[in-house]
Amino acid sequence: MATVAQAVQNELVSLIPISSGALSSLTDSMRYSTLSSGKRLRPFLLMESAAMFDVPTKQSVRVAAAVELIHCYSLVHDDLPAMDNDDLRRGQPSNHKVFGEATAILAGDALLTLAFEALNRPDTNIDSEIRCQLSYGLARAAGISGMIGGQAIDLHAGDRTLNLSEVAQLQQLKTGSLFGFSVEAGAILGHATAADRSALEEYAQALGLAFQITDDLLDVEGNQNETGKTVGKDNAAGKATFISLLGIAGARSEAQTLIKRANICLEQFNDGARFLREVAQFVISRTH
Amino acid sequence: MATVAQAVQNELVSLIPISSGALSSLTDSMRYSTLSSGKRLRPFLLMESAAMFDVPTKQSVRVAAAVELIHCYSLVHDDLPAMDNDDLRRGQPSNHKVFGEATAILAGDALLTLAFEALNRPDTNIDSEIRCQLSYGLARAAGISGMIGGQAIDLHAGDRTLNLSEVAQLQQLKTGSLFGFSVEAGAILGHATAADRSALEEYAQALGLAFQITDDLLDVEGNQNETGKTVGKDNAAGKATFISLLGIAGARSEAQTLIKRANICLEQFNDGARFLREVAQFVISRTH
Repeated sequence: MATVAQAVQNELVSLIPISSGALSSLTDSMRYSTLSSGKRLRPFLLMESAAMFDVPTKQSVRVAAAVELIHCYSLVHDDLPAMDNDDLRRGQPSNHKVFGEATAILAGDALLTLAFEALNRPDTNIDSEIRCQLSYGLARAAGISGMIGGQAIDLHAGDRTLNLSEVAQLQQLKTGSLFGFSVEAGAILGHATAADRSALEEYAQALGLAFQITDDLLDVEGNQNETGKTVGKDNAAGKATFISLLGIAGARSEAQTLIKRANICLEQFNDGARFLREVAQFVISRTH
Repeated sequence: MATVAQAVQNELVSLIPISSGALSSLTDSMRYSTLSSGKRLRPFLLMESAAMFDVPTKQSVRVAAAVELIHCYSLVHDDLPAMDNDDLRRGQPSNHKVFGEATAILAGDALLTLAFEALNRPDTNIDSEIRCQLSYGLARAAGISGMIGGQAIDLHAGDRTLNLSEVAQLQQLKTGSLFGFSVEAGAILGHATAADRSALEEYAQALGLAFQITDDLLDVEGNQNETGKTVGKDNAAGKATFISLLGIAGARSEAQTLIKRANICLEQFNDGARFLREVAQFVISRTH
């Protein structure tokens, strides 16, 4: 995963300009929330899925950076006082704590916009028809029918107690959509068959849920120093989570079942999918 | 202008979904700030510029709707308490006053994302290479080197008094970039010559400045009922404007000079540009 993380880091550094003068707090704020230590899980999924179809790294790294820009903007806006009001992110003060709310809002907007600029730059070495499909897929995964939709449902999730399938659906939108797009983008870049695409989609769906269950487990059991964010928050907010619905042991067992299912989806790719199997293992064994 | 406004309205209605249940406040909030009365100036510029090059309306109306989505999202985020903290927009309570801050932030994000979805939907009847150019141009005009850049500079504009060329540059980024992209998009869709493109760019630049000067004039002279927004705000905030730098008479005369210059850029298009000439006239004679 370190090689992918370095490649994406270089791509992100080259995409976000450094400004002096009046624009410097905006670009500093964008860099602050993008270039600091992230797990780069979505870029890894994207680049490993693309590698299975022999897509050149030069192509997949650009799309991976675009997905990471979307992920990072969503964290900046999520942490705002009007949203989750979170002071900590990745072990550092959240963006608006450092740069102020106004700049944090603009930086999020700018990162979101930059994702689509990056996909469509004249130097993007990807066929234009494929780029249109990628822009469309990314916008869908990030928009009302994906991530933003999940966040909107989550806003009202404290109003009444959700049941297990509602929590799963919320998380599928909020986290799963971008996971799903990441593997789908690899398949689009690699002109994958419909059967391969659908196996990867199913893999991503199971992986996304397992990821979220692990997040919930870390929220109740985790160490704030390791997770880099405030722990115990969901519980304090009275929101239904996988833990409140399944208990700790039940949630851990569900995550393992999901990872088994994810691995079954990868069987048709044989050894080509070894890194995607590693991600699946990482997702449930991670401590942050 | 009414025909264009109706066509864009229909396109926007078809692009923004109506949801029931958990997503309804998000989509209601998106519709609230998009489908209410706007001047639709950018769509008009785009569609009239495209019409000069015989671009089918079916193509230009989609791009015009995308530009309007960007414009509307920027108004929602601009009005937020952490930004301009404005309670009124287009004569109605601003978005966060009705739907709350969290939903307003998400609705802005969703409108911005939807603009790029709209340009890249499979039903978009535009060649993929052209669509990539449009996505790129829109992202540039809306991003750090355009609208968001202008807003970031504006955030700090109260810190010290800007001079005339700094105010002009700020407004060129904040308002002019999207005006510029609108006429540029018409030219891209219509495969215009470099000479035609550069004449239209110069037209849009002069028009954008004249538009902003008129905005400043309305801010000091306008009637809140007609403009639909709080008047006297810039003055109260101690920001340098065209009025504080040129005086009322000087600003009005500068706007007229700019409109003359805009019209000169249109001479090479003869009668084909008559509607763009009408927009220029509208921009300085408007009362809202």
